[in-house]
Formats: sequence, structure tokens, C-alpha cells
Amino acid sequence: MTKTLTDRLAEYATVAADLGVDAVALVPGPNFTRALNQSFMSHERPFILVIPADRPTAALVPNLELRSWDLVGFDGAVFDWRDQDGYDAAFSELLSHLRISSLAVEGQVMRVFVHHALKRAQPDLRIVDGEAAISGLRMIKTPEDIDALKAAIAISERALARTLESVRLGQTETEIEQVLIQSLFAEGAEDLAFPPIVAAGDGSARPHAHARPDYRVKAGDALLLDFGARKHGFAADITRTVFLDHASDEAHDVYDTVLRANLKGFEVTRAGVTAHDIDDAVIGVLESSPYADRIRTKTGHGLGRDVHEAPYIMRGNPLPLPAGTVYTNEPGLYEIDNFGVRIEDDVLVTESGGTSLTTFPKELTILPC
Amino acid sequence: MTKTLTDRLAEYATVAADLGVDAVALVPGPNFTRALNQSFMSHERPFILVIPADRPTAALVPNLELRSWDLVGFDGAVFDWRDQDGYDAAFSELLSHLRISSLAVEGQVMRVFVHHALKRAQPDLRIVDGEAAISGLRMIKTPEDIDALKAAIAISERALARTLESVRLGQTETEIEQVLIQSLFAEGAEDLAFPPIVAAGDGSARPHAHARPDYRVKAGDALLLDFGARKHGFAADITRTVFLDHASDEAHDVYDTVLRANLKGFEVTRAGVTAHDIDDAVIGVLESSPYADRIRTKTGHGLGRDVHEAPYIMRGNPLPLPAGTVYTNEPGLYEIDNFGVRIEDDVLVTESGGTSLTTFPKELTILPC
Repeated sequence: MTKTLTDRLAEYATVAADLGVDAVALVPGPNFTRALNQSFMSHERPFILVIPADRPTAALVPNLELRSWDLVGFDGAVFDWRDQDGYDAAFSELLSHLRISSLAVEGQVMRVFVHHALKRAQPDLRIVDGEAAISGLRMIKTPEDIDALKAAIAISERALARTLESVRLGQTETEIEQVLIQSLFAEGAEDLAFPPIVAAGDGSARPHAHARPDYRVKAGDALLLDFGARKHGFAADITRTVFLDHASDEAHDVYDTVLRANLKGFEVTRAGVTAHDIDDAVIGVLESSPYADRIRTKTGHGLGRDVHEAPYIMRGNPLPLPAGTVYTNEPGLYEIDNFGVRIEDDVLVTESGGTSLTTFPKELTILPC
Repeated sequence: MTKTLTDRLAEYATVAADLGVDAVALVPGPNFTRALNQSFMSHERPFILVIPADRPTAALVPNLELRSWDLVGFDGAVFDWRDQDGYDAAFSELLSHLRISSLAVEGQVMRVFVHHALKRAQPDLRIVDGEAAISGLRMIKTPEDIDALKAAIAISERALARTLESVRLGQTETEIEQVLIQSLFAEGAEDLAFPPIVAAGDGSARPHAHARPDYRVKAGDALLLDFGARKHGFAADITRTVFLDHASDEAHDVYDTVLRANLKGFEVTRAGVTAHDIDDAVIGVLESSPYADRIRTKTGHGLGRDVHEAPYIMRGNPLPLPAGTVYTNEPGLYEIDNFGVRIEDDVLVTESGGTSLTTFPKELTILPC
């Protein structure tokens, strides 16, 4: 049964109560979109929804968003402000109306200028970072969420197939990136989930590399593509590493090690297993290989409306993963100035195991070019 | 002469001195990219550059970014941290090393979790919002910046021409948006400057509308397209409103009013004129028309690495625009449930006047469809 706006706001009110604060604040971003079932831009204009634990929700809305805001169907108090007047008076009215003394905010989303505006309006307001609990409501995916993720992934995989078919020796990383981006939109992406990583040769050894306009791919290069489409508000995130023309024995061995780590991640995934245990199993495979000094990253992160969201799959995170969680299983090995390999799948956690939403082949692939 | 990293860091040190604080902090975003001449992703990992007024710069860098960081050529102190260890210790080391008591941050960019990490590491650190002064360094564009803007605009205008040629009655807003997006990348965009607005009929009356998958464009509709390509890190931002098949007398009159306001903006633009005076002149045209109740927005905003940046062209902003500023001249009139018109150009301020970087025709256009 689809939740109503009232149902969704009630969930955030419960988070406020659980955190022991008077209210939760949301600003434009994935939680805001989820709560309102409509997305808004943020930019330089403060826009905030405050959901008290035990009283009606109120909103501060830039005047020029009121027409779009009307479509949300919100019946609580709205304090709007116009560019020419500034927003300080609206914050004062909002907080006078709410009479709260503590507020949990999304620390990874709210920017400092909004924090400062809240403190100017009410200097004694206690502001705590409620990111984990607030965004935690997005962790267990609904069937509709899973369908959106599958749609984003299907687009991404078709774009990857197109791109790999077109790779030729001598192309620049930037040229390959352009093919990938155009293929994503041609296949139906509504946006990029994030700026793609297209990195070859020594570039593949930098986990967050940018495509270089002056690097031409050559025989023997590793070519790493990490990218995703956004569809229905959800983000795909997939990485494949292929080799061009041929692969050295070392490349084969490194690839095999990363693939074994990736497969180990699936093997240990099941509802109730902790994020720590999954990372420990995956990284354990890499650590027990001859390439332990090439480890640079944890196993992965949650995936949904945001490309990086809870749960973070890393040692020390004691969270048992509930069924319905989707996370990225993306072990990698990176040798500086030489090459890197990463294999990334999007994994749905179920009671009986881990299901890969990504289905693109991951055996070592050598492109004939 | 191209500035070096040292030159650029010295500019931020001067900002710190001007603001009367001990240092300026930058986090990933347009100022960070400008300072380092390289872009980094931000996500959930704190990454911060602290530039004291009178001592060497220091950085806190996620360990997995160190390989990319090496390319920056930074020779100051670097405090890195790994996912498995968390970042609190690195913040403590950074602040112990710096020995500052006040810090200006980018209020529109830094998120609350970084603010909280700074305060945990040094509770008595005074954090002020230095956004205006810090981002102000980007206000006067260099010749290289202007070239990048022109490249982004040229791509955007070619994509607009392609899109308008393909519009047919009965298409959905989403279908038209897809053509626009694919055309932008086909023409060479490296990214979208922002999610495009493609809005027809009553949708055009919402300044920040989203394309609707279920609205089919019909004869007599206004069709508003507000979009831009990103190229070489710079963003174009252009809006054109056309009519499909025919336009009512009212539509002609409203369009003419908005166009006169847009032209008035050019007429009054010249280095030294204030943001207030430009907005006053532009909005004055709209206010003296029969459609004054349809005004919802200010004239525009600065444009560069960010789609919305200083200077904000609004009444009450006493800033005299220096030569080299680029701003959007985008008056509009929006009648709820009926239609809206916006015409947006990207204007370069020179000593002798305003030069339009956008060149797409803006006479009232009726698409035959």
C-alpha cells in the first residue's frame, strides 16, 4: 500500500522522538524528495521542512517555489519569503511558531548557511546531526524503489555494452566517456547518477579519476568504467574493468583476486549479517593475496536515491543489514602508476542471501579493439 | 599570465585577512576546483583545505583521494584519514597544527557534518560564513573563463535549435526534455549545468517546473526551456519561451513585455552600475505593465563555475558590477494555471555596456509543429 504524505511525515516525527529531539528538519535532497514525493532544487535559497515529534509539520518555502509547492498537498503552516526581503524574518516566524528547543538535521545535506540562519533566529536552538537516523528511513527499499533501481541499472548496462563495442585503441579517455554518457541518455537515463569515471592505464589506479583528454588508450591497458544512470529518482552504480587487446599475467592474477573478493561478498550476504562482516570477508580475500598493499577502499555503500548512502559496508560498522537493503559490492586493487581493477555490483539483501541487481558479465574481458 | 597554485592560495589568504579571521576553509565545489585547478568529488567523506591569512595552507584529505591529490602539486601539510579509522583524529591533528581561533567557510557549500567535525575538534573555533567574499573571487571572469562560458553556451544553443526543430504536438514534456538532453551531449556538453526545465502550458507558469511524463503539448501552448551545458567546468544558463502552432493576443503582449524588460537590462548594464539598479530597471518594466501581478522572480544571478553565484541581480544589492562579471538577465511573467514567459541571456559586463554571450534569437517564435 502506498504511503501518504501524512504517513511519511509521521515516520520523521518518530525519528525525532527516537533521537530525543523536538523535531527533524529536512532540506532539498533525497530525504526531502522521499518525504514530499516531489523533488525541488535548492541552490542559494533556504527551503526547509520541520517535522516536530508531536505537533504538525511546518515549512519555510522560497516564494518562487510556492506554485510547485502547491502540488505537494501539504496542509501545514507555510512561511514563505521573497528574494527582495531576505529570509531571516521567515526563519524567526517559523521558529516562533514551532517553539522547539532541539532539532535534528541532515548533516550530509544541510549547508552551513541554513544552520547559521536557524541559529540567528534562535541562538539557543540545539542542532544535532541526525543524518544516520533520518536517511536510515531510506535504507530498506520498497518494491517500487527496487523497480526504479532495476530500471536505472538496465539502462546503465545497455549503455556499457554500447560503449565497449565502440572502444578503439588510440581513443582518448574523454572520447570514450562521451560515448558512455550519450549512450546512457539514448538508453533512457533521466540524469547521470554521478560524473562517470572512465580511466585507462595508470589512470585506472586512481579510485576517483577524471577522464583525461590527452590520454590515448593503448594495447594492454586496463580500462575502468564506473558510472550509472538515474531513473525515477534512483541511481545505478556499476563498475567494470576490461583490458584492451591483451592482458598481462599480473593483470589476470589481480583481476582474479578482485573477482574472488566480489564473489565472496555475495557468498556472505544475507539479512542479519553486519556491514563489518561483509567488508571483513571481502577485504580479507584481498589481504590474503600478494596484492594487499594495493587496497585503498572499503567494500561499498548503500545505494538508492543517493549514490552514496547508508549502510556503509566497512569494518567497524556493527549494523546488521536488514532484508531490502541495497549496497554496492565494489572491491578493487590499485597499483600507483601502473593499473587498477574494480568490479562493482549492486546487491539486494534478502533473507536467503544476496541478489545481484547488476547482471553485466564480469569474467575477465579482453576487448579486441 | 596564468596564476599558479601559490598565487591562487594567496588570494584566499587575503580574503581571510580582509574578513578579519585567521583562515579560510574550502571544501569540494567551485571554489575548491578554482583554487586547486582540479575537481574532486565530495560525497560523505570530509575533504578540506584551510588557508591561513599568514601561514602555509594545510589540507585534510580522504586517503583514497591521495593519488588524485598528488596531481595538484600541493606542498603543504596533508592530514589524511581512512574510512576504517574515521576522520575525527585527522580534524584534531589539522587544527592542532594550524592553531587558529577563527575560520571563514563557504556557507553555501560546506555541509553541517563538516562544521560539526570542526567544532568537535576545537569547540572554541569561531566559524563565520565567508561565502560572499570567498566566492567573490570568482566574480570577475578571466579571458579563459569567458572562453569556457562561450563554449558552454554555443553547445547549448545548438542543442536548443535541434530540439525546437523536433517538437511536435502531442509529445510529452518528458519526451522533449530527452531530446534536449541528448542534443546537449551530442553537441559536446561534458555535463548538464543543472536539470533542465522543459515546461509547457500551465507548467510554464512554475519557475522551477519539472517535465511531466503525462502532459502532451498542444496548439497554443507556451513551451519554456531553461537549461545549459557544462563545458570546461563552466555552466551555460539560457531560457527561451516559444509558442506552439499559434499564440493568443495576450501571449503576444506578455511576451513583448518580458522582451522589453530583458532589453532594458542590456540597456542599463555597464561596469559600475549596481545590481540593484539593473534589477530595478528590469522589474520596473514589468511593474509598469498590466501584468505586474505575474512577477515572481528577480532579474538574475551571476554565472560561472556555478549556475547560481554572485552577483545576485536584485533590488537591495548595492554592489556595483565590475567589468568581467557575467550575469543572467532573465525576467519572466507567470500566470498561475495559465502560462509563463521567461527570456534569459547570459550577459558580460564591460566598461562600455552589456554584451550578450547568448545569441539565440529572441523574437516571439511560433513553431509550426
